[in-house]
Amino acid sequence: MIETKAKQARVASIRMAALTLEQKNQALSEISRALEQDKEQIFTANRADLEQARQETISPVLIRRLKFDEGKLQAVKDGIDSLIKLPDPVGETLSCTELDDGLELYKISCPIGVLGIIFESRPDALVQISTLALKSGNAALLKGGSEASRTNQALAQIMIQAGQKAGLPAGWIQLLETRDDVKAMLAQDDSIDLIIPRGSNAFVKYIMDNTRIAVLGHADGICHVYVDKAADLEMAVRVAVDSKCQYPAVCNAMETLLVDASIANRFLPHMKTELDKQDVRLRGDEKTCRIITCEPAEDSDWQTEYNDLILAVKVVNGLDEAIEHINTYGSHHTDAIVTDDEQAAKTFMELVDSANVFWNCSTRFSDGFRYGLGAEVGISTNKIHARGPVGLEGLVIYKWKLIGHGQTVADYSGAEARSFIHRKMDKKL
Amino acid sequence: MIETKAKQARVASIRMAALTLEQKNQALSEISRALEQDKEQIFTANRADLEQARQETISPVLIRRLKFDEGKLQAVKDGIDSLIKLPDPVGETLSCTELDDGLELYKISCPIGVLGIIFESRPDALVQISTLALKSGNAALLKGGSEASRTNQALAQIMIQAGQKAGLPAGWIQLLETRDDVKAMLAQDDSIDLIIPRGSNAFVKYIMDNTRIAVLGHADGICHVYVDKAADLEMAVRVAVDSKCQYPAVCNAMETLLVDASIANRFLPHMKTELDKQDVRLRGDEKTCRIITCEPAEDSDWQTEYNDLILAVKVVNGLDEAIEHINTYGSHHTDAIVTDDEQAAKTFMELVDSANVFWNCSTRFSDGFRYGLGAEVGISTNKIHARGPVGLEGLVIYKWKLIGHGQTVADYSGAEARSFIHRKMDKKL
Repeated sequence: MIETKAKQARVASIRMAALTLEQKNQALSEISRALEQDKEQIFTANRADLEQARQETISPVLIRRLKFDEGKLQAVKDGIDSLIKLPDPVGETLSCTELDDGLELYKISCPIGVLGIIFESRPDALVQISTLALKSGNAALLKGGSEASRTNQALAQIMIQAGQKAGLPAGWIQLLETRDDVKAMLAQDDSIDLIIPRGSNAFVKYIMDNTRIAVLGHADGICHVYVDKAADLEMAVRVAVDSKCQYPAVCNAMETLLVDASIANRFLPHMKTELDKQDVRLRGDEKTCRIITCEPAEDSDWQTEYNDLILAVKVVNGLDEAIEHINTYGSHHTDAIVTDDEQAAKTFMELVDSANVFWNCSTRFSDGFRYGLGAEVGISTNKIHARGPVGLEGLVIYKWKLIGHGQTVADYSGAEARSFIHRKMDKKL
Repeated sequence: MIETKAKQARVASIRMAALTLEQKNQALSEISRALEQDKEQIFTANRADLEQARQETISPVLIRRLKFDEGKLQAVKDGIDSLIKLPDPVGETLSCTELDDGLELYKISCPIGVLGIIFESRPDALVQISTLALKSGNAALLKGGSEASRTNQALAQIMIQAGQKAGLPAGWIQLLETRDDVKAMLAQDDSIDLIIPRGSNAFVKYIMDNTRIAVLGHADGICHVYVDKAADLEMAVRVAVDSKCQYPAVCNAMETLLVDASIANRFLPHMKTELDKQDVRLRGDEKTCRIITCEPAEDSDWQTEYNDLILAVKVVNGLDEAIEHINTYGSHHTDAIVTDDEQAAKTFMELVDSANVFWNCSTRFSDGFRYGLGAEVGISTNKIHARGPVGLEGLVIYKWKLIGHGQTVADYSGAEARSFIHRKMDKKL
């Protein structure tokens, strides 16, 4: 069943790759129009999902995320509008080299092919992800949170019908229903090129351990703020409070605060006053506990993503120890330094081995919307392909097109070998 | 033991990432100088490897690859010279966006980190790979063919000493000795970022199945030439003979020839005459067997990489069937069309889902040197990160550097939210 869906997606992906910008933008408009036109169908399905969620006494936060109303619809339509305005990520000539007279090599951006995307219980995420896949010319198998299953089915049905009307190939998006479907999807390495899981750490780790398909994403988000000896301490408090408290449940929130020993006595009490106002519980190393009242931290605290109003605090002896701590215990996601010393900041950003390295600003800025990428499909801590917030650009790869006039490699071998020119050219294909 | 080596490589990789272009080029010069100075040590080790190989009656081809003499040394030194001339792939500003006044986002190229590279019994490959890793600022764990172990040890020792003299961090390259070492390396996903295996299909598949680390490379190389109805038949013969015969043992050699039905009667007999001269054995589908004398092909032939003077031949009904055959049975490596019909060529290059898609030239051009990439670490059929021949550019990724003045995300949220500017800028960091 899933194998059939995956094969259908593979066939669709070949046609998706050949769509023009106009065809893709027209399909996006059609989808936006259809969502507006059939919105009552979506709202009805969503009310049923919400009703069931309330009966199962799911948390108010989840209920808010699950809700799909006029406001969410408008946000989704605005998102499609901005996507239409973005240039085509596909078919761009990334380089052109004349290998020899009449033998031209072009490196051309193209879609990855078939994406398998697993996402949380926000029905708006389904539309965002599907339209990103469409604009980047990919086919996608999609599995949303089960709490949103009726809403997702309504949305998918509307998008599939609109896509069909606009000439998209059958099977360009397909919905998976169950956890078993996801398990089956992980085995389709012949048909699926990339898995993008969003969700809990445990879930992402499960995915990474159970597929041969490439996985783009992140498990942990253990982010740090390091307050350097040359920091503006008022700024440091502001950045640290925002990094921890602005939205503590997300992956780019700070989990560990590192403080240079030489300013710890001045900084920590002030810091504690502000964090106390936000009800943040502190877990400090020995030196921290000598300066302010807090619970003693254990080694495991440096490796814990609390996703909550809890903060680990450590006093370090200077920049090098801070960098080493972050590279040892961090998750290579987002780490910030607060300092007025430019050289210290540059060293920090050079040597901290993370996707996002910040100077004098909050870790919470690490996000595709804030970066101006348009929507994001997720944040990657991978060291290959795409790193940090991943937008349209992360959903394409390239192919090499070589255009000749009958040249053979034998001509370029042996005693009478022709030489290659390898001249870079400005030509576009 | 391997865990220790991998951890040491991880530590070294942080320092490698911060090297300047001058430091890297100086180290490359030092390595080239040291190889020349200590060449007798290398030649002596190589003679011992050759002696043992001859006793074990290894094939003449392998003996030729194993030999490291003045000629190979010169080639290796020439390679280092061209590497020195290449620009620094690290530290390049790939994009710069002003998010708001005084809040600037830079996307900066940086090394991947720690590479694990397994390669065949060519000692010159060790130098090529190590120097590519150095220029791209990566650390590397290296495992060469066991037949070359003495030569590899001599080469590695000389490069490590020269690197130390030039200020490279200890552990930037380390040699693994045994197959058990390789197995242990595959488990070091905390320290190693990318595995690049070169070798037999079975070996590469084994690697892909036995590690959570990302793998860059290719298993099969099932390449096609499609002779279209609008082909110049003389050219088609020339391209097909070169694609099959110029070096049949390699991954970019043609394994299956597809011929349009409307020209099969004219083309195939001519083709057979030329391939007979090269002793190529033909395995044809039913239609082919009706036109020329050849063994009947079975379905498995379309999925076989012969790496030998054997060719599968199939008559197809036009472009669409050719494309479908290639996408179904091929390995997404390199496929060529011979035609004078520009539209057919464009459709072929658009819809064939392979790393390298060629028009009117031999599949054998698919190679890093011929593409002008400098040396290559391998050819990738992956759909993410790097595709086709992989040179320096394939060994880097990027990090996001965000530079502010104390900005918090709270400033950009809620009723009084500031807006982002998202202005693209030409600035370099």
